[in-house]
Amino acid sequence: MQPGIPIQRNPALAGLACLRCGTAYGLDGPEPLTGCPRCRAEGYPASLVVRYDGGPWQPRPGARGMARYGERLPYLAYPSLGEGGTPLVDLPRLAAALGVARLWVKNEGQNPTGSHKDRLSPLVVARALELGYPAVIAASSGNQGVSLALYAAAAGLECEIATTPTMSASWRDALDQVGARVVTFTDPFDRWRYVARRVEEGACYPATNFIVPPVGSNPFGVDGYKTVAHEIVQATAGDEPPTVVVAPCSRGDLLWGLWRGFQEAREAGWLPELPRLVAAEPFPRLARVLAGADYRDHFPGRTRLISIGGSTVTYQAVRAVQDSRGRAVPVTEGEAAEARQQLARAGVYAECSSATVLAAALRLQDEGWLRAGDRVVLVVTSHGFKDGGEFVRSASR
Amino acid sequence: MQPGIPIQRNPALAGLACLRCGTAYGLDGPEPLTGCPRCRAEGYPASLVVRYDGGPWQPRPGARGMARYGERLPYLAYPSLGEGGTPLVDLPRLAAALGVARLWVKNEGQNPTGSHKDRLSPLVVARALELGYPAVIAASSGNQGVSLALYAAAAGLECEIATTPTMSASWRDALDQVGARVVTFTDPFDRWRYVARRVEEGACYPATNFIVPPVGSNPFGVDGYKTVAHEIVQATAGDEPPTVVVAPCSRGDLLWGLWRGFQEAREAGWLPELPRLVAAEPFPRLARVLAGADYRDHFPGRTRLISIGGSTVTYQAVRAVQDSRGRAVPVTEGEAAEARQQLARAGVYAECSSATVLAAALRLQDEGWLRAGDRVVLVVTSHGFKDGGEFVRSASR
Repeated sequence: MQPGIPIQRNPALAGLACLRCGTAYGLDGPEPLTGCPRCRAEGYPASLVVRYDGGPWQPRPGARGMARYGERLPYLAYPSLGEGGTPLVDLPRLAAALGVARLWVKNEGQNPTGSHKDRLSPLVVARALELGYPAVIAASSGNQGVSLALYAAAAGLECEIATTPTMSASWRDALDQVGARVVTFTDPFDRWRYVARRVEEGACYPATNFIVPPVGSNPFGVDGYKTVAHEIVQATAGDEPPTVVVAPCSRGDLLWGLWRGFQEAREAGWLPELPRLVAAEPFPRLARVLAGADYRDHFPGRTRLISIGGSTVTYQAVRAVQDSRGRAVPVTEGEAAEARQQLARAGVYAECSSATVLAAALRLQDEGWLRAGDRVVLVVTSHGFKDGGEFVRSASR
Repeated sequence: MQPGIPIQRNPALAGLACLRCGTAYGLDGPEPLTGCPRCRAEGYPASLVVRYDGGPWQPRPGARGMARYGERLPYLAYPSLGEGGTPLVDLPRLAAALGVARLWVKNEGQNPTGSHKDRLSPLVVARALELGYPAVIAASSGNQGVSLALYAAAAGLECEIATTPTMSASWRDALDQVGARVVTFTDPFDRWRYVARRVEEGACYPATNFIVPPVGSNPFGVDGYKTVAHEIVQATAGDEPPTVVVAPCSRGDLLWGLWRGFQEAREAGWLPELPRLVAAEPFPRLARVLAGADYRDHFPGRTRLISIGGSTVTYQAVRAVQDSRGRAVPVTEGEAAEARQQLARAGVYAECSSATVLAAALRLQDEGWLRAGDRVVLVVTSHGFKDGGEFVRSASR
């Protein structure tokens, strides 16, 4: 344990469970790191989720940000940099333009390292500290890597990031500053093979997936994304809650966390009705699975929206969208670029990959899927200073 | 008034007063836009500050971020993007390295556009809306421009930014996205002349200074910086409050706001003792004034720490540091770069200009001015994705 970095496990933490078959796993030994062993053996990789002992609970009074929801996080104390507590920004002029009753942006760019990943990293780092690992590791195109590296640094752990050559200079500088070990691979699947090797060697505790077909990221970390939903519910408590929530989607960690969080809020009696969840993606991937393709297939596609790239789908992403009666909406680079400008002109400067949420909402408006009475939350996962300049420069080349 | 953008003036708002001579000004006509007319006529430009009718007050329960301190802001409602409420991050390992009792970072990079300027912009925009201006204007090297442009966009106002060719691609992309009118001048004083002309024409309401010698930025906006102090006081209320607060300094808007805020907190009985305020600057400027130079002189110097550049000093900066028995500490680019890396390795990714706060603290430790019992807050005004890549690239050229 590092001096001055107290971690405290939540006494209500009961273990893990498979979100597909329901098999429960304890926490006495090291937990399975590749999703549910049983489902994987059957050829259907699926994520684990964190289980808690039941009973009523409340947000922790006086706590700031994510820690307010500590009663339903694996750790009550963890290495914090001030994550969560991001604003829900009311944008009435954009609501009018979109023809819906309300439009809010949940601005996750206001997290410590500028993305929603800051809700995952501290919980993964806490678990790594508890298990005695010297290092954490992630496969990342940018945001997850920077976030994990800074939280690891704050906790005195080493950090390795397996990335691709497309990482922009902004992210790369952050990783260099913090002194993370960056390993670059041209083939994204080689990144996962590298992470797998480091995990098998016992050298690193993994924050992200490393198997094919993939599962979601580390379940202790993904549990942190529930707090995005809890904050949305609390912020709209005196108001009417959202009917639709749109988030950028790669392998669906955020969507799954949102879904779990809204379910928890409903079970606690804070939310009368569950919203529909919409996945914004850079090319048809989850959309093809929802139309009948096998979620374990490859769905190749090229995109410069690198924060939501990749050719795979996860079981958790399918479930979050299907169970909530939502949609997966492919968005072109051009639509994302236009949406990014529209968001800026409403006051929100978003990463290109994040601006897909508005582009997806505009598509759903065109199709008549969004209704005039809808109250819509767009989750902007990351701010525009990440890849802005580079995206624009490369687009004009 | 824009539809859907309600603004509400604080009924306790009493007017303005000169911080040098104390002359009070009302708000019936347009307020003086170049500081105190009387002091300026005497040849001693000095800022105005906002006056409130007295009486006990409390943070507004349930309000988020800056709006919690609405009772001592000029507006109770203003165009908000979720500014303020940034975390005070406890960094025990960095405290040990610095040999002080406590070390916190107040991470202002977690504001909506990634800098503390987001506490100024909405109040300036509110005032512009109230006065019926069609546009706002600022002279800015980056952060202020991006912040003002996004808040103006959210409120449906036009925005002009007078800048220099040193603005990095990140900031420039943000201004292009939002559609601000950007006018570039090689001579920084030409920027002020341009702003002066646009203000004299009645075309734009000014967020920043435009006279020589300069005064501070728009007093309605600077009043927002008080909330940084209030948040620090509230966050350390169950703890021991800071004895030293370090902030990056150009013309001292933030330092002056901090000083006013700490004074308000002390008057309200929330703070037993006022902290000493330290100005981190890129070359001796305020330090020379504190050593006897005239604050109205020019203090030329070159720096790539552009967010705190400029060759002038303001009366407000002198007063904030002198009245608090603080210091002005010049920091080299090399020290700033090293401090930036040290901050990252403690978990905080800062803009180069912001990392000067740690460099200044290290100097003060060397000199023995910081004591083992000191509890230090470093105000990191902006995150590292702003100029990170460019600073590093230009440094290695």
